[in-house]
Amino acid sequence: MSNAFTYSPLWSGLFRDDEVAERFTGEVFAAKMIAVELAWTSALAKVGAVSKDSAARCETELSSFSPDLLAFAQASERDGLPVVELVRQMKAEVAAEDAAAIHSGATSQDIVDTAMVLTLLEIFELLGRRLTNLLNQLDNLSAVHGKSSLTARTRMQAALPTTVSTRVSVWKSLVSTQRGSLDALRSKIAFGQFGGAIGLRGEPAGKGEAAAKYASEALGLSHGPVWHADRSRIVDVGNAFATLTGALAKIAQDLCLMSQQGIDEVQFSDQGVSSAMPHKQNPVRAELVIAQARFASGLQGTLSQAMIHEQERSGAAWAIEWLTLPTMAETAGSASLSLYSLLGNVTRLGTEVPK
Amino acid sequence: MSNAFTYSPLWSGLFRDDEVAERFTGEVFAAKMIAVELAWTSALAKVGAVSKDSAARCETELSSFSPDLLAFAQASERDGLPVVELVRQMKAEVAAEDAAAIHSGATSQDIVDTAMVLTLLEIFELLGRRLTNLLNQLDNLSAVHGKSSLTARTRMQAALPTTVSTRVSVWKSLVSTQRGSLDALRSKIAFGQFGGAIGLRGEPAGKGEAAAKYASEALGLSHGPVWHADRSRIVDVGNAFATLTGALAKIAQDLCLMSQQGIDEVQFSDQGVSSAMPHKQNPVRAELVIAQARFASGLQGTLSQAMIHEQERSGAAWAIEWLTLPTMAETAGSASLSLYSLLGNVTRLGTEVPK
Amino acid sequence: MSNAFTYSPLWSGLFRDDEVAERFTGEVFAAKMIAVELAWTSALAKVGAVSKDSAARCETELSSFSPDLLAFAQASERDGLPVVELVRQMKAEVAAEDAAAIHSGATSQDIVDTAMVLTLLEIFELLGRRLTNLLNQLDNLSAVHGKSSLTARTRMQAALPTTVSTRVSVWKSLVSTQRGSLDALRSKIAFGQFGGAIGLRGEPAGKGEAAAKYASEALGLSHGPVWHADRSRIVDVGNAFATLTGALAKIAQDLCLMSQQGIDEVQFSDQGVSSAMPHKQNPVRAELVIAQARFASGLQGTLSQAMIHEQERSGAAWAIEWLTLPTMAETAGSASLSLYSLLGNVTRLGTEVPK
Amino acid sequence: MSNAFTYSPLWSGLFRDDEVAERFTGEVFAAKMIAVELAWTSALAKVGAVSKDSAARCETELSSFSPDLLAFAQASERDGLPVVELVRQMKAEVAAEDAAAIHSGATSQDIVDTAMVLTLLEIFELLGRRLTNLLNQLDNLSAVHGKSSLTARTRMQAALPTTVSTRVSVWKSLVSTQRGSLDALRSKIAFGQFGGAIGLRGEPAGKGEAAAKYASEALGLSHGPVWHADRSRIVDVGNAFATLTGALAKIAQDLCLMSQQGIDEVQFSDQGVSSAMPHKQNPVRAELVIAQARFASGLQGTLSQAMIHEQERSGAAWAIEWLTLPTMAETAGSASLSLYSLLGNVTRLGTEVPK
Repeated sequence: MSNAFTYSPLWSGLFRDDEVAERFTGEVFAAKMIAVELAWTSALAKVGAVSKDSAARCETELSSFSPDLLAFAQASERDGLPVVELVRQMKAEVAAEDAAAIHSGATSQDIVDTAMVLTLLEIFELLGRRLTNLLNQLDNLSAVHGKSSLTARTRMQAALPTTVSTRVSVWKSLVSTQRGSLDALRSKIAFGQFGGAIGLRGEPAGKGEAAAKYASEALGLSHGPVWHADRSRIVDVGNAFATLTGALAKIAQDLCLMSQQGIDEVQFSDQGVSSAMPHKQNPVRAELVIAQARFASGLQGTLSQAMIHEQERSGAAWAIEWLTLPTMAETAGSASLSLYSLLGNVTRLGTEVPK
Repeated sequence: MSNAFTYSPLWSGLFRDDEVAERFTGEVFAAKMIAVELAWTSALAKVGAVSKDSAARCETELSSFSPDLLAFAQASERDGLPVVELVRQMKAEVAAEDAAAIHSGATSQDIVDTAMVLTLLEIFELLGRRLTNLLNQLDNLSAVHGKSSLTARTRMQAALPTTVSTRVSVWKSLVSTQRGSLDALRSKIAFGQFGGAIGLRGEPAGKGEAAAKYASEALGLSHGPVWHADRSRIVDVGNAFATLTGALAKIAQDLCLMSQQGIDEVQFSDQGVSSAMPHKQNPVRAELVIAQARFASGLQGTLSQAMIHEQERSGAAWAIEWLTLPTMAETAGSASLSLYSLLGNVTRLGTEVPK
Repeated sequence: MSNAFTYSPLWSGLFRDDEVAERFTGEVFAAKMIAVELAWTSALAKVGAVSKDSAARCETELSSFSPDLLAFAQASERDGLPVVELVRQMKAEVAAEDAAAIHSGATSQDIVDTAMVLTLLEIFELLGRRLTNLLNQLDNLSAVHGKSSLTARTRMQAALPTTVSTRVSVWKSLVSTQRGSLDALRSKIAFGQFGGAIGLRGEPAGKGEAAAKYASEALGLSHGPVWHADRSRIVDVGNAFATLTGALAKIAQDLCLMSQQGIDEVQFSDQGVSSAMPHKQNPVRAELVIAQARFASGLQGTLSQAMIHEQERSGAAWAIEWLTLPTMAETAGSASLSLYSLLGNVTRLGTEVPK
Repeated sequence: MSNAFTYSPLWSGLFRDDEVAERFTGEVFAAKMIAVELAWTSALAKVGAVSKDSAARCETELSSFSPDLLAFAQASERDGLPVVELVRQMKAEVAAEDAAAIHSGATSQDIVDTAMVLTLLEIFELLGRRLTNLLNQLDNLSAVHGKSSLTARTRMQAALPTTVSTRVSVWKSLVSTQRGSLDALRSKIAFGQFGGAIGLRGEPAGKGEAAAKYASEALGLSHGPVWHADRSRIVDVGNAFATLTGALAKIAQDLCLMSQQGIDEVQFSDQGVSSAMPHKQNPVRAELVIAQARFASGLQGTLSQAMIHEQERSGAAWAIEWLTLPTMAETAGSASLSLYSLLGNVTRLGTEVPK
């Protein structure tokens, strides 16, 4: 699935995060899958299932291998997954006697899941940096405007007079909590997935467990139990993306409400204009972040059903992850860009205290 | 938002419907918006707000106008919508004295909403044809395999022996109902949206209502009340897409269950293979359609909130439509392609009656 | 499932609609199921499957029958449905030789689905009356306050000055559209469900179709094809409930925004107070309606998956309907009560024009 | 909101968990709120804002206070929350000079949120015990049937022969992961919420922070920052409930599929019967758990939007929590009861190995 509309140049980057999306492109994701296959190849050698020479030759031959993406057209139609074709292409790159050092004892899910983990870890790092930047920006805003007046509001009603620094500190706390959640989640998901055909680590015979451990280590990941049919860590990642987007949207919602004429508690330098009504200053980015948070929340409601992963491997439940998680990652990323851009355009926050 | 993952060549067309997606690309959607602008120009002339000559010159100058998509990059960032920039480009194409014949009295929402209606009508037609093809295919399957045995199952349990034709007739009824729903919805949504700045049809002064009528007619649409802030027709379209995808998924779910070894009530000619387990015949497409139906349903849960469209125009609620509806259209389309492909590969349905 | 929290007396009726909920109680719903069973009994007699005398005796014996609700405790645990036990109780009320006039050839789904249709039709009527009351109320508000000033706002920004009557006419249009949708849907769902064990109308042999027709007619319903496995009409009802709640929430959202100090475009006579801040006037009901609309929308995202109704009858997909639809009906009803109460407390709408 | 249908005696306890629901009743939740108020009273005394004697008298007078639930009828209608009325009732129980020792400096949200935390902690404990019981049950099943044959299936297709113990160990791992998640979450949420009117801990002046600390400690909770407007911990609780329900549904889905005639890998002692088809053994409870997991997932998609909690306190966003979280807790609980009941009825798992 795509969304050709919000992705189109007509909307510029309003709904996009090319830096996140790039991680999910065929080229970049395939490179991760190749890295996973080669980690498995090295593990096969370490447990003695294939010769070290054979594994070394595979690694050399495939060190700069880039797959023929067009060839996936028929293959994925047939197989429902790109791994079978990827393995075919990889084997074709090496000598016939080395082909057994590739993928033997692994299953498609091992490759896709582990490549997904590597991808998610990169995205966590990217988002973590973005959140740090947002925190710095909020610090700056507080330093400049913190003492300005603001009306605290509860249930849409004026409650008590306060200062900008009060509200900004709530915003900072929200962002900081989310940054902490990403850090905590990182250690929860940074595990390889090497389980073999039905998740038993039965191959190489008697050495599957050791091979799984070596392969994870080669990728800088931890070793743990097979999670073929326990998708809770993926659902938790989705929850983190949705919650993060929601935290950013809380700030955006506050800014929208503050920007209303009659309230006038924020001024932006460069807001959307209306051809018919040039006096307007639409808080465009803020509105979109709110929409994105509702969108990401809804996707989490779908992703969570990936838990109902029947038997040893479910195509239907697994596909739910693919349909939602990459979009949720990009949504969180796009919202962080929008909020950063929005806050960067703030020229006034709160009501200046009359002197 | 996009989903760079499911859109990538790695997955071939498994999750895509390029024919639907194409309608939402910048180029094609912009062409629709230009058509809407020109319909408005012609309406302005008809009510006498601009000269017929001026309108005619605009039409001539812009008859083959294709916008500079790259120029939307900064503009949409700033405006939150592509219409301001589109109007700027269109005006730049005509003589200065004719510029007033373009967009005067219209608002961005008029253009985007009406272009969306035109787009949706095309998609309805496309999906309608697809459903007709599916019905023909089901007729063929029933003709060939209808008398074969099948075990009717209720609540996952064998209920009574029946024949293939019984179940196929239920499938046909599902598809037929959805085709009828699209037809009924077509006449519900085929209305122009021309309301002006705040939905009052205040411009051209005293002639806004007439102009709206003329503009809709020029596009082959009906004329009715402004629906700037009543998004129920859009939500109903989403409901149709989700329900249609669900109807297809019911058939797909049946096929998945029929394909289990031990049940063996369907055979496909060309199913997914497993590198490790070549004896398997994964009903890949069927599983994906099920996932897509859950995905589309979840998106409907988000889209439905577009009803909470505050004041005279909500950026946040409107953006929810853009984030969901195009994807839902493509999901329904992709599911229809998958099911067609799947049914086309059926070589046996039911259990052959022993002779 | 329940929600013991929002149902508790602590919240009074804020989240409740006892008039709607009453239709789904065991007592009232059982009465509908009994009516459906008796309609089937009369149909069995009409097609000659049982004697007219036998059917008449059943009708007489059961005319004031009220089931032993406690006896469902074990039965439904075991059967997963109340119908088996209900039939057992009904048969126990009549003479042994008349027992065959009860339920023969029908299936549990026939009874539950048809009783649900009867229930939904009552709720449609109730909601329709509520919407008419709301329209009258809006007319009154417009008559009193229509000429007061109001600032039209688009994308959260002041757009143009207008009058209260402009915005109220949009509200009226929203409510009116929803009332029309309920009317249209009524004729779409007012069909009996009589299909027998696997939906073939195989019993009474050769007379199942006629019996289904008679039974529907006896209940004042139309006769049409079996819809055991095509749940689109139920999904459409959910869409109507969610959309209606959303339409009410659009009005509530406008009122929330108008009630902000600094905007001051509405005044209520009797709003929530804050113990600590007695100057506040919380638009409590308005906020809750907004929350309810998001809640109902989310439920629609779940209900829509009821389409994936596998084989001849799915317990899992069917149960999704029970878990969502009654709550959606009550949510729509509760929102209509809240909005009515809220509008009834309006003492000022818009800004008085200075004289 | 309620769901009068699934709550009705017609369905017995199929969709209920009275032990969880009981925690959310007016009586039990009010008792929690009273405990929170009294903890605040004791904290006021500790920081010297009221006299220790006054606080002690309050504690004595209110030690067995049970509120007049009927009196909430008008109050909550007006206030949108039960706290104002509860405080009024509590003050009426004590001498006039002691009234200041009740609620001074606290806000309604402090009371409701902290009472909710206490409630959730009890539910976590209850669910934790249930999961331990499930793990024991799975151990027993594995001990008895572990060596029986089972066909491992991937993507709905027979993959490789394996044994029951393999699949049961995956089930155990799922349940065990969820039990661990509840434990981890417990320490994340076990914090008091004492922030005062706008979350600044401004009262008692200069001592608000200390009072908050004392109040939390008096309830056995940790002390941390105010989370009035950061609802992520509540969203995380919802994620835990949805994920837990999903984990149970994965097991239920497996059992459903195993119970199909033709697969025959499980036998239950006491399954649902069909009046018309007594040979059937409907895995009723299993189907319902699957439906409940989809339902809970959808609710999480709504709850997640509670993050968009505008300004210092949002009535609309807060109400989303009340509409979803209690139901999600009960759904998780009900699913755990159903699965326990289901597994307790297993008389055969897998295919007996022929001797």
